[in-house]
Amino acid sequence: MAQEYSYDYFNVTFPQEYVAQVEINRPEKLNAFIEVMWLNISQIFQCLSHDPNVRAIVLTSAGDRAFTAGLDIKAASSGGLIGRTDADPARTANALRRHILEFQACINAVEACEKPVIAVLHGIAYGLALDLSLACDIRVAAASTSFSVKEVDIGLAADIGTLSRLPRAVGSASWAKDVCLSARVFGAEEALRVGLVSAVYANKGETLAAGTKLAGLIASKSPVATMGTKEILNYSRDRPVEDGLRYTAVWNAAMVQTKDVKDAMLSGLQKRKLTFEKL
Amino acid sequence: MAQEYSYDYFNVTFPQEYVAQVEINRPEKLNAFIEVMWLNISQIFQCLSHDPNVRAIVLTSAGDRAFTAGLDIKAASSGGLIGRTDADPARTANALRRHILEFQACINAVEACEKPVIAVLHGIAYGLALDLSLACDIRVAAASTSFSVKEVDIGLAADIGTLSRLPRAVGSASWAKDVCLSARVFGAEEALRVGLVSAVYANKGETLAAGTKLAGLIASKSPVATMGTKEILNYSRDRPVEDGLRYTAVWNAAMVQTKDVKDAMLSGLQKRKLTFEKL
Amino acid sequence: MAQEYSYDYFNVTFPQEYVAQVEINRPEKLNAFIEVMWLNISQIFQCLSHDPNVRAIVLTSAGDRAFTAGLDIKAASSGGLIGRTDADPARTANALRRHILEFQACINAVEACEKPVIAVLHGIAYGLALDLSLACDIRVAAASTSFSVKEVDIGLAADIGTLSRLPRAVGSASWAKDVCLSARVFGAEEALRVGLVSAVYANKGETLAAGTKLAGLIASKSPVATMGTKEILNYSRDRPVEDGLRYTAVWNAAMVQTKDVKDAMLSGLQKRKLTFEKL
Amino acid sequence: MAQEYSYDYFNVTFPQEYVAQVEINRPEKLNAFIEVMWLNISQIFQCLSHDPNVRAIVLTSAGDRAFTAGLDIKAASSGGLIGRTDADPARTANALRRHILEFQACINAVEACEKPVIAVLHGIAYGLALDLSLACDIRVAAASTSFSVKEVDIGLAADIGTLSRLPRAVGSASWAKDVCLSARVFGAEEALRVGLVSAVYANKGETLAAGTKLAGLIASKSPVATMGTKEILNYSRDRPVEDGLRYTAVWNAAMVQTKDVKDAMLSGLQKRKLTFEKL
Amino acid sequence: MAQEYSYDYFNVTFPQEYVAQVEINRPEKLNAFIEVMWLNISQIFQCLSHDPNVRAIVLTSAGDRAFTAGLDIKAASSGGLIGRTDADPARTANALRRHILEFQACINAVEACEKPVIAVLHGIAYGLALDLSLACDIRVAAASTSFSVKEVDIGLAADIGTLSRLPRAVGSASWAKDVCLSARVFGAEEALRVGLVSAVYANKGETLAAGTKLAGLIASKSPVATMGTKEILNYSRDRPVEDGLRYTAVWNAAMVQTKDVKDAMLSGLQKRKLTFEKL
Amino acid sequence: MAQEYSYDYFNVTFPQEYVAQVEINRPEKLNAFIEVMWLNISQIFQCLSHDPNVRAIVLTSAGDRAFTAGLDIKAASSGGLIGRTDADPARTANALRRHILEFQACINAVEACEKPVIAVLHGIAYGLALDLSLACDIRVAAASTSFSVKEVDIGLAADIGTLSRLPRAVGSASWAKDVCLSARVFGAEEALRVGLVSAVYANKGETLAAGTKLAGLIASKSPVATMGTKEILNYSRDRPVEDGLRYTAVWNAAMVQTKDVKDAMLSGLQKRKLTFEKL
Repeated sequence: MAQEYSYDYFNVTFPQEYVAQVEINRPEKLNAFIEVMWLNISQIFQCLSHDPNVRAIVLTSAGDRAFTAGLDIKAASSGGLIGRTDADPARTANALRRHILEFQACINAVEACEKPVIAVLHGIAYGLALDLSLACDIRVAAASTSFSVKEVDIGLAADIGTLSRLPRAVGSASWAKDVCLSARVFGAEEALRVGLVSAVYANKGETLAAGTKLAGLIASKSPVATMGTKEILNYSRDRPVEDGLRYTAVWNAAMVQTKDVKDAMLSGLQKRKLTFEKL
Repeated sequence: MAQEYSYDYFNVTFPQEYVAQVEINRPEKLNAFIEVMWLNISQIFQCLSHDPNVRAIVLTSAGDRAFTAGLDIKAASSGGLIGRTDADPARTANALRRHILEFQACINAVEACEKPVIAVLHGIAYGLALDLSLACDIRVAAASTSFSVKEVDIGLAADIGTLSRLPRAVGSASWAKDVCLSARVFGAEEALRVGLVSAVYANKGETLAAGTKLAGLIASKSPVATMGTKEILNYSRDRPVEDGLRYTAVWNAAMVQTKDVKDAMLSGLQKRKLTFEKL
Repeated sequence: MAQEYSYDYFNVTFPQEYVAQVEINRPEKLNAFIEVMWLNISQIFQCLSHDPNVRAIVLTSAGDRAFTAGLDIKAASSGGLIGRTDADPARTANALRRHILEFQACINAVEACEKPVIAVLHGIAYGLALDLSLACDIRVAAASTSFSVKEVDIGLAADIGTLSRLPRAVGSASWAKDVCLSARVFGAEEALRVGLVSAVYANKGETLAAGTKLAGLIASKSPVATMGTKEILNYSRDRPVEDGLRYTAVWNAAMVQTKDVKDAMLSGLQKRKLTFEKL
Repeated sequence: MAQEYSYDYFNVTFPQEYVAQVEINRPEKLNAFIEVMWLNISQIFQCLSHDPNVRAIVLTSAGDRAFTAGLDIKAASSGGLIGRTDADPARTANALRRHILEFQACINAVEACEKPVIAVLHGIAYGLALDLSLACDIRVAAASTSFSVKEVDIGLAADIGTLSRLPRAVGSASWAKDVCLSARVFGAEEALRVGLVSAVYANKGETLAAGTKLAGLIASKSPVATMGTKEILNYSRDRPVEDGLRYTAVWNAAMVQTKDVKDAMLSGLQKRKLTFEKL
Repeated sequence: MAQEYSYDYFNVTFPQEYVAQVEINRPEKLNAFIEVMWLNISQIFQCLSHDPNVRAIVLTSAGDRAFTAGLDIKAASSGGLIGRTDADPARTANALRRHILEFQACINAVEACEKPVIAVLHGIAYGLALDLSLACDIRVAAASTSFSVKEVDIGLAADIGTLSRLPRAVGSASWAKDVCLSARVFGAEEALRVGLVSAVYANKGETLAAGTKLAGLIASKSPVATMGTKEILNYSRDRPVEDGLRYTAVWNAAMVQTKDVKDAMLSGLQKRKLTFEKL
Repeated sequence: MAQEYSYDYFNVTFPQEYVAQVEINRPEKLNAFIEVMWLNISQIFQCLSHDPNVRAIVLTSAGDRAFTAGLDIKAASSGGLIGRTDADPARTANALRRHILEFQACINAVEACEKPVIAVLHGIAYGLALDLSLACDIRVAAASTSFSVKEVDIGLAADIGTLSRLPRAVGSASWAKDVCLSARVFGAEEALRVGLVSAVYANKGETLAAGTKLAGLIASKSPVATMGTKEILNYSRDRPVEDGLRYTAVWNAAMVQTKDVKDAMLSGLQKRKLTFEKL
């Protein structure tokens, strides 16, 4: 396993049974992302998705200053695609579209991961920090976290998921458009008030502890139940209630046959604690 | 009418003109649901839907301890479908799918009821309590209410509607996934903060009084207007704004022809009180 | 330009560079709407949409008493369509449907306008006030604002957009149905709590100042970035995340080629202030 | 079973193992439909849907002259809903909408039936004949069949399904609109050419024989496979390919576990004939 | 009326009661389109849509050589948007997107026209000829018609509707992609075989006569019925059958109240000929 | 390149400029598929998708007897997933779902390939042959081809795409359900009649020659135009026409800026032959 999860810019550890912790690890650059990092994110979460030893995941970052400052602008601006003036605009557009779709696909791997993912946020959380944490299932933040949908400040519309996922994640369309259009910085309390995060803790340490505890709680449940819950919630978000119900019925037609249900029902009645077979 | 609305586990009464009150009535078992109860829910709400004497409905429960503890696990676990090990998994799946779809359809009858339905919640409100109250239009709760999306604790993903409807009902996707994945208990104030309920009152009595008062207010309006409002809100929830608008235009093309509009416009200008013909 | 934006019931001014202010101007009638006004709204916003001198828009109203009291009932009730008893119901329905669709299309022009629109609300904001401000991107309100989804009080379901847009704009489906079905009046603080508005200020003057300041901030960004951000947010609202991402990739394939990105990246690194070419 | 399937206007028989034949039986009125008949259609197909002795269904009609002439106009025109001039148009609209939805739901029961349904058409097949046969899975016709989407000739748009299902059933949108707008009569050869029916036979007897033979062939397959095939085809018709694939994967996750697959794979290799357990 | 329908490049005539004929009239240039022409198309069809004297429309072209050769390439290539090399690609993209959306909206006006439109095709029918005729309801062609989805031959993907509408209009996805990707010319018989047109006649004169006769037949029906039929067919094309049915029920809730239904039912029983009130 | 496209069961060649030919190469087993083969299909088409030397692709098979007999049943039946009786049905379902989704994703790579793909069919074309060729853009067949949607004969519903794509590909829903439910064999002429293939040739050699010629024709066009045409056709298939048009406008906003358009317009007027820069 050591090898499977060995990356330059990520530490993958297992703080307790069935819980994985993925730590973004480029603190000297405020955990800013370069291309290899989003490719690695994709590989790590695809791997965790099918890893039978994992039932819940915590995503966090190294250092005290930043969850991530977003895209590494220096690296990006030296890339070939931006600012070419000699090229055919259609051919450049084709190269850019491929690039954006691949980048999106990497971040989508977090949402597609079968196991629930908890984003533990702190410090600077700009740009890609939102794209990435919005692809997670649950977001908790340290009181010090400062957020910004930063993209308009570098001349572009956010294109790795924030504009599609943020309005569905919070309870105010007006607020969502405000922060996306103005790129203004907002804090953890404001994020809590609008529902972007579901809990705020005093500092990074307490936030990570709380996130890990929640991951542990989820990991103690039947993995058949928690994986199904994530899948159906994600499916239903994008479709009419009617379709969500129909998909749920087909899903549970297989899943309710698990002995976990029988065991859990009995244990509930008998107040026993349960362990569940790996998935 | 007495006969039409006579059921073992439900009391249907009419506390004031045009207002019906449906009371779940199995308090000795914490109003836990057995199969006959969801079949009855469906019959009652289909009947109320077309009853010209009803313009708004309050859904409440008998006793002080629980709105409902959810599915009656003992009854469910003795049923034939769970835990069969000899049967062909595909044929069991088929039986289960039919069962889930029929169960869902019963709860859907509350959403499909043409008249607005107000859920008045108190005490324990676990599992099916959420599936059921999320199919209502408005939710109010006593301060003592304790909620839980309990299904993962019995080894399964909630399959009667919570996972499709809860995220659309509240203002925080992170919070919705938190409570669905962890099955943790939360209280009325938290439910109010995230928008799951729109008002909290001191105790069951005051909550029921407030819910009934709101039902009375709605029932005092033109039934053409309130029924249309519910229908268009439900239709629009699941479709693009563009489709909602187009449906609305066709709907009102007939409905605006009612004399209720002319009467209401004049009475508004003349400050008179109105009564409206039955629908 | 004076001529282009000259209307009897609207004042269009340009309080600062790249910011337009549209003022509804029929204060002696509480800014209530007659037909010519929604036709003008459509013309004004279609014009602003393509006006290269405009990058953000503030929508406000003249006078202290009302943003708008909604439809001018007296004018509407003297119109030919309501209350005809002799006509063929199908032919009347056809005339009504055309009328509603045209009315909706006028208000949709605000949503379709390429530039971000900030609704600055105060005083009475009933009926059409909500249809209209929900077609804006951002809503801020004076503390004194009193809101009502008033339509059921005149015997009809709101048909110019509120029922399709309101539930997507706020963080509580229960609250949205409550105010749509009861037509009850609610204040600015309640509107802020549920997310309908994203900020409340002491009075109309401060609200307008804050709205204009926010418009100015947005107008200082690359217009390529802010226009794209609005477009993608609106597109994504009505479609699965998957479709939103795919649309975003195609959009940015062209837009990221702008020199604004290169300029903004460099200026960010160099802490310089930027001006952007007109769009 | 005799009792379960005993109706005045329908004969339900079982011409061979696992095949049911439903015969519309009001030949003296050209099998025209009165209300009790569509209510019965719904009951019969709901019953067949779960009947373990049925794996495929043939729908046919008594007599030589007509599959069905459609709605019984005399009966319909004496009903209360059409032509009331005294009533409130909105309240009449509400009654009509309920009526149409209930009528649609009855015909939808054929599409929702889990077992494949083959419509065997002959003679006059007007109006409701198309609504009904388009809710079937497969259509075959005698050479003498004369079709018409007749509704515009009685002043209305077809409202029981033809306008939604016909364009998806045939290979020419231009042709579909032609016959829906003109109400012109067309024959079996034309129906075959555009794909409305998939086979034409010399006369009613041969058509019924061929339809029954096809039903027998389908009934000889694994019922797990044929039921799944119908369900996935219907689900996919109305949704993006992506959604169809995702639903299919969940469906087969349970269904492929059946021993029918193992048995069928082996028998295919061993050239044995199989029988399958009831579903 | 003369004035209302007076255009340089279109002749609008009324060959018989309730039938309008729109003739594209730039035969010296093979009826190729310049910008003013698509703007006029939009105005003409918006006008016809609400004209009570019109119940069906025939679209044809002047001269013997071409229905239309498509876009006037010479005019287009001298326009400002194509081939600018100095401009910012994002700003050029914005101008192009506006231009394409406006062009699409003009052609969409034919589909949105409430009255059925029959395209009568002959001679050269390239490029825009397909975009335009696919926005019509019914297509008939002279034997000599030569079709081509010509756009790839000028270096672009067809963007005025062909790629969205053609595959829904015909019975072979493989064929649709073949002609869109290869730009090859195909004839009327092939168009008939795949369902693109629903009838082929010997020459232009006979085709126009047949199209006009069909328009006359449609115009003899209740306009409430034919308008509703077009609207529901168009609505259903783009949505699940379930949504189509629901929309139909609301639509007919108003429309079935017309006295046309009562009259038509009686006249059908009494074999009388009917005239219907204007819509 | 030799290395990039070197696989045991596939030959990738380049019969002419810009045309790739992918040959399934397991003729001794009737080109039946084992797992490595669909993994390779995915790799090959992902590679071709971005290969600037490729503008159109022909998919064919080695040997005279079969395009492919489908899944290699012997290999599949010895796999671990089918027929386990000891395992938890939910955990088996999870493994199966992952397996099916991965299999589907491999075949989807053909549809997602940016370059048009022409399936050249001959001999036996059963089961997976249809899933695979339906993911291609164009299908042509030798007269001898025998098709079958074979899956129900091995006890399951087709799950790699046929049930989602076939009904959209042909012009008869009745026919599509017939062949999916009965698994009957049908020939090339029938496939042509219903639109499944768009051309039939005398034998394999002529079919391959014709497919390659068509690929060559497509490859001679602007790659900006043909890639865009495929993308927009695929996008539009699954979405309302309105959405297709909106996507098209954004797509062409970038793509029309290519110099290919200017060049092609001029060359069309000047009758010159063009070469286009690589994409």
